[in-house]
Amino acid sequence: MSTPLRALGRHIILELYDCPEELLKHPAEAERFLLAAAAEMKATVVGSNFHAFSPYGVSGVVIIQESHLTIHTWPEHRYAAIDIFTCGPLELEAGITSLLSAFQAKRHWLRELERGLVED
Amino acid sequence: MSTPLRALGRHIILELYDCPEELLKHPAEAERFLLAAAAEMKATVVGSNFHAFSPYGVSGVVIIQESHLTIHTWPEHRYAAIDIFTCGPLELEAGITSLLSAFQAKRHWLRELERGLVED
Repeated sequence: MSTPLRALGRHIILELYDCPEELLKHPAEAERFLLAAAAEMKATVVGSNFHAFSPYGVSGVVIIQESHLTIHTWPEHRYAAIDIFTCGPLELEAGITSLLSAFQAKRHWLRELERGLVED
Repeated sequence: MSTPLRALGRHIILELYDCPEELLKHPAEAERFLLAAAAEMKATVVGSNFHAFSPYGVSGVVIIQESHLTIHTWPEHRYAAIDIFTCGPLELEAGITSLLSAFQAKRHWLRELERGLVED
């Protein structure tokens, strides 16, 4: 008989397209949006680190007790790449809704990956 | 005629199974392994942040000029979840080889995702 597997982590790949360019340029604003999403998810924030690129673009990470959120933006393409990696029973959907709203993405693409398949 | 698309980022999803438990327990060691992989890739490290979980397990991120590397470990399952997100011409394969060797994974699973599909 086959052994059932379970996933240790949930990983959301979120592609945001057609965002207002202005929302993708400022590290402090991106950080505020990701921290708000972490709060919506009921995650426990351990730390965060955001920085700007030259001439523009933002890179950032929010470390949560339950894993992490990251973002990289390309304002010139009105695109942001967001990852949400979690373990434990967080309210992921609330975090995703918060991010889609904050960055005003007109189009998005989302995939969920199961990470760490182990025997139950 | 269809418009060709190109990807702004390359994202490696790396699942390491059957690693020696001892290698997955210590934040300083995991940090050393990820920084070594970043060096192999010829990435420019901007910062890093690693911490331990109770009773065990490590969570960490290395921020590079070209995006990020992250890790989360479950020593009790001998499993580590690693992500490498890059833009620009890095030597990704050298970084992956370095990580597989450092963590002594007996089994691994790798997928590459293209992030940020835009018109050329």
